[in-house]
Amino acid sequence: MNSRPPDRLASRLHDIPPFHVMELLARAQTLQAQGRDIIHMEVGEPDFPTPPAIIEAGQHFLANGQVRYTPALGLPALREAVSNFYASRFAARVPAERIVITAGASGALLLAVAALTNPGDEWLLTDPGYPCNRQFIQAFNGVVQALPVDALSNYQPGLEQVAAAWSARTRGLLVASPSNPTGTVIDKSVLDQLADLVAARTGSLIVDEIYQGLVYEQPAETILSRRDDVFVVNSFSKYFGMTGWRLGWLVVPEGYTRPIEMLAQHLFIAASSPAQHAALAAFSTETLTLLEARRSIFAARRTALLQGIRGLGLHVDTEPAGAFYIYARVSGICRSSMTLAHRLLEDAGVATTPGLDFGAHRAEEHLRIAYTADLTRIEEALQRMRSIM
Amino acid sequence: MNSRPPDRLASRLHDIPPFHVMELLARAQTLQAQGRDIIHMEVGEPDFPTPPAIIEAGQHFLANGQVRYTPALGLPALREAVSNFYASRFAARVPAERIVITAGASGALLLAVAALTNPGDEWLLTDPGYPCNRQFIQAFNGVVQALPVDALSNYQPGLEQVAAAWSARTRGLLVASPSNPTGTVIDKSVLDQLADLVAARTGSLIVDEIYQGLVYEQPAETILSRRDDVFVVNSFSKYFGMTGWRLGWLVVPEGYTRPIEMLAQHLFIAASSPAQHAALAAFSTETLTLLEARRSIFAARRTALLQGIRGLGLHVDTEPAGAFYIYARVSGICRSSMTLAHRLLEDAGVATTPGLDFGAHRAEEHLRIAYTADLTRIEEALQRMRSIM
Repeated sequence: MNSRPPDRLASRLHDIPPFHVMELLARAQTLQAQGRDIIHMEVGEPDFPTPPAIIEAGQHFLANGQVRYTPALGLPALREAVSNFYASRFAARVPAERIVITAGASGALLLAVAALTNPGDEWLLTDPGYPCNRQFIQAFNGVVQALPVDALSNYQPGLEQVAAAWSARTRGLLVASPSNPTGTVIDKSVLDQLADLVAARTGSLIVDEIYQGLVYEQPAETILSRRDDVFVVNSFSKYFGMTGWRLGWLVVPEGYTRPIEMLAQHLFIAASSPAQHAALAAFSTETLTLLEARRSIFAARRTALLQGIRGLGLHVDTEPAGAFYIYARVSGICRSSMTLAHRLLEDAGVATTPGLDFGAHRAEEHLRIAYTADLTRIEEALQRMRSIM
Repeated sequence: MNSRPPDRLASRLHDIPPFHVMELLARAQTLQAQGRDIIHMEVGEPDFPTPPAIIEAGQHFLANGQVRYTPALGLPALREAVSNFYASRFAARVPAERIVITAGASGALLLAVAALTNPGDEWLLTDPGYPCNRQFIQAFNGVVQALPVDALSNYQPGLEQVAAAWSARTRGLLVASPSNPTGTVIDKSVLDQLADLVAARTGSLIVDEIYQGLVYEQPAETILSRRDDVFVVNSFSKYFGMTGWRLGWLVVPEGYTRPIEMLAQHLFIAASSPAQHAALAAFSTETLTLLEARRSIFAARRTALLQGIRGLGLHVDTEPAGAFYIYARVSGICRSSMTLAHRLLEDAGVATTPGLDFGAHRAEEHLRIAYTADLTRIEEALQRMRSIM
């Protein structure tokens, strides 16, 4: 044995907090192996299969066996298709030239942060927020400056808050709308004011629109229909039902395509070819009709779950307008959402995600519940929760 | 228009040299569009399709539409399959626990470098070498220390050279065998001495074995059959014919799996599910038999190309033992391999890669010629080259 303990890990690895939900998942698997029925409401993955037309396009592409690298920026036809989608659905003019196809939104976030962050540069991120964002920034030796948000601010950053937090070392702001874990959509005029503020300070704004199509009270939108000086992250995973394919895209402001291309060539070579060819069928009328039907199903689940958990005494101070999550406040029921998550799993067989996975700000007061299970299972989960509360 | 020029790019982007071959490729495409027949010997991608059993496994997986995220470390069955492959083909005991499935060798290199590199840490890399390695290190704010290598040292680093180059800031050494662009295999005893040296200085050794199965004068090998304190990068792209799928793996020393898993969860979520399910068929007897037949074809091309270019007056001072490249010295024919590459393309319709894409050391004296075209095309290329030389 020549092995040593990992005593020389880079410091960026010292700061990675564990995903608490993974521990819960492992426990859920143990319970399942013992024959327990577990209802999974912790997962950030739609329960629907990939739409048939996308599957068929993937299979058709595989048939001749020629599975080669694509250009680093992605298949020209797919970049065009995304550009056309922005035009037809959002009346946004986004030239294909500014669209970079990536390995999931993960690849898009990695490229954007790598291209914009020097060591010590600070990024403003909401707390709670998508936990990986913080790690992308730390990976490239940037520094995360948390913007605590809560129900009072619709779980989104406010103009005064960002202005007050902005320092000489601030490089930019990352906003997610609809957001994970809270599902809230940022007010259009607030976002525009934030974008103006960031531009005035010669910073960069990254807008995460990966839950873009999954909104229930207003039409889906994009900041790109109003301005083109922002970085936008999007994904085929959530609305398009392609999680396991690992495909997303990044829209960059004019002039950034070439440097991002060079970075992508070196760090990724290219995104998956089967995924890119399959995704060419993602914007067909057939697929979009199916996806809109699924959106209605998510809407019905959302209503049922909101009503149900409120009936159990959980609070939802700001109703989520999008994504497929409810970020419920559990104060009054228990002092720690972590404890509650464990109790729900052990006693009710319902898996959820504790707030601590999304940050520190009032995290122990909150629990994320995903409606990525069907209505029958959601009703069953509510019934089981009721029986132990 | 709110767009600004990209005046605030991270400094890591200032240091990325262009891929000269891309400029040549663009010119080749222009010529092709004009009706010219171009023979592509610049490409680092096998011309064979993905083996049928792998394609079928991929299609079978897609059939039910359930294309979900896998665990961040990869499908347990695939990690087991890779472990079994090390045992059966190389008599190497590599527990599945130490195997991390990644988005190509690119993902493996990214994870290894990110996990091991603090800002300012230096890595020793050969010049010439795979150009992306330098960018992975610079991406994570490490510093590249070049080890100039040439035919005298088999284009591989030597013990005294590494010992002399090692400084207080050196974090580790990256060795590729067979190497790109030179195709040379490092001597086993030299590699073991290098590994001892690196261990003695409590550094890390990364061995790039992505061309592992493509050797023509000796059996394929792995350092893992001799020691387990190294990081090994491998890929389904080259030997297994799966470039466009973007799938590879990283073997880590004991104790590193958990930190690498956390990093992979955040930076990638997981590698492509279709690719992982397809790759389960990569180690079947049927597929391995086909891949060995392809290796014989590569061997025949290598012999023909070596003989042919020597006949043209190009020098191959050290015969490449593996990969699918010949790194030919063109001094005596012209003063700049870049000029020659352009002339070969314009006048002979043969695309090659100039040495400058792989480093600075005697780069203008060398040209990389890939035998990823069939024998007939290789003969045709040689004939055309002869006619203009």
